[in-house]
Amino acid sequence: MSELLRELDAVIAARRAAGDGQGSYVASLCANGLDHILKKVAEECGETLVAAKNAATGGDRDALVREVADLWFHCMVMLATLDRSSADVLRELQRRSGLSGIEEKAARHGAPD
Amino acid sequence: MSELLRELDAVIAARRAAGDGQGSYVASLCANGLDHILKKVAEECGETLVAAKNAATGGDRDALVREVADLWFHCMVMLATLDRSSADVLRELQRRSGLSGIEEKAARHGAPD
Amino acid sequence: MSELLRELDAVIAARRAAGDGQGSYVASLCANGLDHILKKVAEECGETLVAAKNAATGGDRDALVREVADLWFHCMVMLATLDRSSADVLRELQRRSGLSGIEEKAARHGAPD
Amino acid sequence: MSELLRELDAVIAARRAAGDGQGSYVASLCANGLDHILKKVAEECGETLVAAKNAATGGDRDALVREVADLWFHCMVMLATLDRSSADVLRELQRRSGLSGIEEKAARHGAPD
Repeated sequence: MSELLRELDAVIAARRAAGDGQGSYVASLCANGLDHILKKVAEECGETLVAAKNAATGGDRDALVREVADLWFHCMVMLATLDRSSADVLRELQRRSGLSGIEEKAARHGAPD
Repeated sequence: MSELLRELDAVIAARRAAGDGQGSYVASLCANGLDHILKKVAEECGETLVAAKNAATGGDRDALVREVADLWFHCMVMLATLDRSSADVLRELQRRSGLSGIEEKAARHGAPD
Repeated sequence: MSELLRELDAVIAARRAAGDGQGSYVASLCANGLDHILKKVAEECGETLVAAKNAATGGDRDALVREVADLWFHCMVMLATLDRSSADVLRELQRRSGLSGIEEKAARHGAPD
Repeated sequence: MSELLRELDAVIAARRAAGDGQGSYVASLCANGLDHILKKVAEECGETLVAAKNAATGGDRDALVREVADLWFHCMVMLATLDRSSADVLRELQRRSGLSGIEEKAARHGAPD
């Protein structure tokens, strides 16, 4: 569905498996446990709201993009700790939107999920 | 980058443009203004945290996936109201991870962090 | 410590005990369970952040006060469902700040609000 | 209304006025600006949700009390930076509940809502 998100999922999985102690941010996040990751998700959500308000009053819109990237990334780490991934999220979004024609074709051409 | 997210962005843009009064959830969200969308983002983030805790104590992990889908979707509506999109977010994630088409091969071969 | 908060705690406890079906907001919140209350706490926190940003850019500061009141009130309902109360929170704040001697004396002298 | 909260408001005001560089947490929070304080509010709200879920599944309920204390305290710092205080919040809660000195007596006698 999304090459990039799938690769990020793979990178997150690899760093989780490698464990802490190698300076990996993901590994250190995971070593601190789910509650710590959830705290980060909440913090990034707060920063997203603030950045959106700043963007709406003339501030930097790219700062908002960076905060959403932070939020989504931490969501992906959270999902990984619970054996789920961004692929599941995209599948759910797809299911809801009834968008299928295009990526079905892609799938037929061998793109795995 | 992601066909599905790009299509969702297009759907959101179309519904925003069409305006309220046609029973579209996106249009009604947008008609209520940015502050209302941000309230929804915060609410979905709260539901994500709760669902993650439930999943960690034996609850339904697919419920977590649904909450993250809600959260990401409302983020996309928020981005649309500020002339940004999920494509910008993916581009930012790509920039950080250094994963591009060219580096994809390296990633597949187990490149370290 | 705080007459008002203590009375609100009592009102919340009474409405929880009375149960749903009487048009009480607190009873209906509690009937929906902890996860629903937590969703409301998250939503009110989001509205607080938005109101703070609005206040900082010339908006109504009393709107911020109303959102914090909402947030604290929902926190009190949450605490009640877990056998805790605002009195515990104030005791914790007092413990941290080491403030005790001073307001005891003030209280004895009947300091006005 | 609440001696303790009023004193905390005073302490926060004094530390804000004194400025950063003296090891005061409040001063350092304020020196970082409103957006930083709001990030902390969001983070503490996330920790509150997590602590509530932990408390509901057999965890330490006093940990929840500590998180709510953190959340309320950071709200008070936020209010201070926008020329409002916990006194305003209590006044709003009082206004809503119709609990004043005069009605206190009725409340003690178990008057409904």
